Amino acid sequence: MDATGGNLVSSVLREYGDATRASLFEYLPTAEPRRYLYDLVGDYPRRGGRAFRPSLCIATARAFGTPLEMALRTAVSIELLHNAMLIHDDIEDESEQRRGRPTMHVNEGVPIAINVGDTLSLLAMRPLIDNRETLGPYLSLRILEETERMARESAEGQALELGWRRDNVTDVVEADYLLMVLKKTCWYSFIQPCRIGALVGGRDPSDLSGFDRFGYFLGAAFQIQDDVLNLVGDRKKYGKEIGGDIFEGKRTLILAHFFKSCSDAEKQRLKVFFGKPRAQRLPREAAWILDALRGHGSIDYARQVASHFAQTAVTEFEGAYQDASGSDDLEFLRQLLDYMVNRDV
Amino acid sequence: MDATGGNLVSSVLREYGDATRASLFEYLPTAEPRRYLYDLVGDYPRRGGRAFRPSLCIATARAFGTPLEMALRTAVSIELLHNAMLIHDDIEDESEQRRGRPTMHVNEGVPIAINVGDTLSLLAMRPLIDNRETLGPYLSLRILEETERMARESAEGQALELGWRRDNVTDVVEADYLLMVLKKTCWYSFIQPCRIGALVGGRDPSDLSGFDRFGYFLGAAFQIQDDVLNLVGDRKKYGKEIGGDIFEGKRTLILAHFFKSCSDAEKQRLKVFFGKPRAQRLPREAAWILDALRGHGSIDYARQVASHFAQTAVTEFEGAYQDASGSDDLEFLRQLLDYMVNRDV
Repeated sequence: MDATGGNLVSSVLREYGDATRASLFEYLPTAEPRRYLYDLVGDYPRRGGRAFRPSLCIATARAFGTPLEMALRTAVSIELLHNAMLIHDDIEDESEQRRGRPTMHVNEGVPIAINVGDTLSLLAMRPLIDNRETLGPYLSLRILEETERMARESAEGQALELGWRRDNVTDVVEADYLLMVLKKTCWYSFIQPCRIGALVGGRDPSDLSGFDRFGYFLGAAFQIQDDVLNLVGDRKKYGKEIGGDIFEGKRTLILAHFFKSCSDAEKQRLKVFFGKPRAQRLPREAAWILDALRGHGSIDYARQVASHFAQTAVTEFEGAYQDASGSDDLEFLRQLLDYMVNRDV
Repeated sequence: MDATGGNLVSSVLREYGDATRASLFEYLPTAEPRRYLYDLVGDYPRRGGRAFRPSLCIATARAFGTPLEMALRTAVSIELLHNAMLIHDDIEDESEQRRGRPTMHVNEGVPIAINVGDTLSLLAMRPLIDNRETLGPYLSLRILEETERMARESAEGQALELGWRRDNVTDVVEADYLLMVLKKTCWYSFIQPCRIGALVGGRDPSDLSGFDRFGYFLGAAFQIQDDVLNLVGDRKKYGKEIGGDIFEGKRTLILAHFFKSCSDAEKQRLKVFFGKPRAQRLPREAAWILDALRGHGSIDYARQVASHFAQTAVTEFEGAYQDASGSDDLEFLRQLLDYMVNRDV
């Protein structure tokens, strides 16, 4: 078992990822202006990544009997938009590192980074327009529509998260958190890749709600696990700074549980910590918060919810893919799902 | 003659602008999340504006015999994208005022403003997808393609302008400036509204180059005049702070002429001024620059170029619209053109 699950998972992610990247780079202009734009649009894509979302799309299309080539442009668009959103997210979250290197705005300044992100979003439209050659105009427009929906769901989720942080909101309840995750994580990483993969695979547009449920439960399980790992994970396996979410003031299910069960004094202490500029938040304060979260059982509670959601995701998977016949891709999806919901939590 | 030309120009801009705005507001969600997103997406559109670009699109479609209703969604998309780009431009240019009020990022902070701009860009896709109901899927995809092209040309122009400013470039020559204006101003405000208006009006996609030329000469004439008015205009008529471009360090044709003809000492003095943070640039330094630009004949030179381009735009207009038969809209376009190239320079 390596960092991305079993051998089948690794090899399929590599295969679909390589195909997506090869086609993606053909969509990046090499024209002028290079220095301030087109040398930069390829920066994040060149840094790698597991190509998890495009693989989910391709595997779903193939599971329903459609060859990879028919899904490739759609997969490219998913990955381009992902990179576009990372650039803007990094500015919005004031992140300094992305995939082990300085973020775009750290390297180039905020104005040029915003413009590079905008350009990548536009470039993501091109493979979707080119889809008309292989998928016909109606399905192409439908996939554009799904893409607009997904990106807008993400923006809605991002708005909630940014707003809570900016206004130092400490009354985020579980339902608020789950709505934010549905919009920000589930639509983006799970629901839309599966839905448009299924559309390319010939599924009827009226018959996609199984993917919504599957994507929701899987996405929520994944995100809650990710939030738990951020606090108690093994840094080497997890790949990010442990406790980084506390320093960032990220509102998680763990915090929602804590806000509900802590004393007024504890809540006030947290509010003061989150109210300070990030650079002034001290490690000993973060350590106190981590202890308090443990003490109130907030981390254990999140673990339980993640586990419950993961079990439901498995059930929903079987329903959503019941008419699928591509056994290799189904097996890949099953193993991927298994890996995602059974990481070291 | 009022601020937007003659009576016909004013009344048609009002009519097409009102129709566009009415439809535009139907495309703005009123759902949650309101406070951090959907209350904000309508902010810039509600501030008004002359709706010049959508009117150009509608008038072109009508001039070629297609009713307003057929062009309306395309016009809405132009205006939505315009507002999206204004929000990001205001961040990138560090502008504090927009249409007489504080800019989005001044009110809401940069992270939320980026996200609101992204959302408006996405919303701009929706009327273009809805076009399939009236224009059919092929033409709808074609207009999406034209829109992606225009927005990318704008981003390329913006990249040049941002890069020149960030790196304090003082060897911008006339050809550099004209390329930047072609991309940033002409495509965005003139070429694309005319091209997609003509497409809606039933023109053949292979027969649009006349609009490229018309839009280029008109756009360049307009922008160069705007740069001149920024330095020597009547503040009341011009509507912006006189000399603001100097404080912003904006690279103009006037500066390109100056860079070519000034002494090394003068160039150095300008470079030092532009190298300082904006808040440290002093009025007396700006006054010296204005005198130097006048002394080298740079402002007069720009006036001459604008006038030459304006004359060519008039010729190109007659060529591009030679098969048009909608006499009222042609007359509107002619008067609009006349107003735009004969402002008080």
